[in-house]
Amino acid sequence: MKKIFEHKNLFCLPWTQTILGTHLKGKVNFMALDWLTRVNVNPAMLGICVNKNHGSHEAILETGEFSVNIPSVEMVEATDYTGLVSGKRVDKSNLFSVFYGELKAAPMISDCPLTIECKVSQPVDLPTHSFFIAEIINIYTEDRFLTDGNPDIKKINPFLLTMPDNNYWSIGENIGKAWNSGKKRIKHL
Amino acid sequence: MKKIFEHKNLFCLPWTQTILGTHLKGKVNFMALDWLTRVNVNPAMLGICVNKNHGSHEAILETGEFSVNIPSVEMVEATDYTGLVSGKRVDKSNLFSVFYGELKAAPMISDCPLTIECKVSQPVDLPTHSFFIAEIINIYTEDRFLTDGNPDIKKINPFLLTMPDNNYWSIGENIGKAWNSGKKRIKHL
Repeated sequence: MKKIFEHKNLFCLPWTQTILGTHLKGKVNFMALDWLTRVNVNPAMLGICVNKNHGSHEAILETGEFSVNIPSVEMVEATDYTGLVSGKRVDKSNLFSVFYGELKAAPMISDCPLTIECKVSQPVDLPTHSFFIAEIINIYTEDRFLTDGNPDIKKINPFLLTMPDNNYWSIGENIGKAWNSGKKRIKHL
Repeated sequence: MKKIFEHKNLFCLPWTQTILGTHLKGKVNFMALDWLTRVNVNPAMLGICVNKNHGSHEAILETGEFSVNIPSVEMVEATDYTGLVSGKRVDKSNLFSVFYGELKAAPMISDCPLTIECKVSQPVDLPTHSFFIAEIINIYTEDRFLTDGNPDIKKINPFLLTMPDNNYWSIGENIGKAWNSGKKRIKHL
C-alpha cells in the first residue's frame, strides 16, 4: 500500500560524497558537497548546489571558480570534518595538501584520486540555495586510478552519503552492465 | 604524479540510477535517468538533466510534470531497457504498473520502493541538455521500506551507475556516520 512520505526533504537517495574547494577571501576553503550532477555533454559541464549561508557560496560568487574533489573511503573522517565546521569561522586551509591547474581559485586536493576544475558559466538563484552551472576545465587523476586509460571506480574507491539516516557507504558489488542488461527485453517486447 | 584526464565527459562518479516517468503525447513513457540532484530545501526541489534529443525532453516541455522513480536492485534489467530504446519509436507504456498522485502527467512505478512526484518550476536551457528545476509535490513509499518512520537505504536497495565503464553497482557497507565521523578532528585542529 503506497503512502505519502511527509518529509519532502528527507527522501533517501545515495549521493556521491565530494569535497568542494574554493578560495574564501583569498584563503583556501573546503566544504563537504553532495548535491551535484552532470548537466551538459558538449561542452562538459557540472552543476553544484550550495546553501546561501555557507562560506563556499560567498567564495564562488566572488571568484566564479571551484574544484570538485572525489575522496576515497580512507578520507571519510577528513571529509566529514569539512562539513562540520564553517569556513567563515574556522580556517580549513591547511586540512589538505593542494595543487592548482589552470584556474587561480580552484584548489584541488592532492590526496583525492579524482579532481575536477570548474569555472562557473551560469549561477541559478533559488530560494535557499544557488545552483552553479560550470564548465569543466580539466580533470586530474593518476595512472594508478585508471584501467585501460579510463577511471576505475574500484581503484578510486569513492563513497556515498544517505540522508536522513546520515550514513556513509562504500560502493558494493557489480550487478550488471549498463546499456546491456536490458537487451534481452528488446526481443521479447 | 597528477595527470590531466583527456575525456572531460568520462570521469567516473557513481550516480544513483532512477527512472524518469512522463507523458509523451498523452502516453506513459519512461527513461533511465542518472543526472539529478537536490537543489533547494524550502520548498523541497529537485533538478534533473535531460538530453534535448530524448522523447522525455519533449514530454516535460509539453506537460511541465514528471516523476522520479527509484528502482531496487531486482529491477536492473527493466531499468536498463528504458535507456536502450526511445519512447519516440517504442511504446514503453506497458513496461510497469503505474499509479498517480496529484499530478496528471507524472506516472509513478508501483514496483519502485520510492517515487517522487515533481512539477517543473524553472527550465534551464543548456547547449545539449535542459536542466529542469522542479518542486517536489509528494514522495510515495510503503511502510516496508521505512525504519523508525524514515526511508531505509538497505530496504530500498537502490543501485548506482558508473561511466565510462558502464557498470551498475549495489550499495556496499556502512563506513561511518555523517556529521559525526569528523568530530574527533574538531578537538585536534
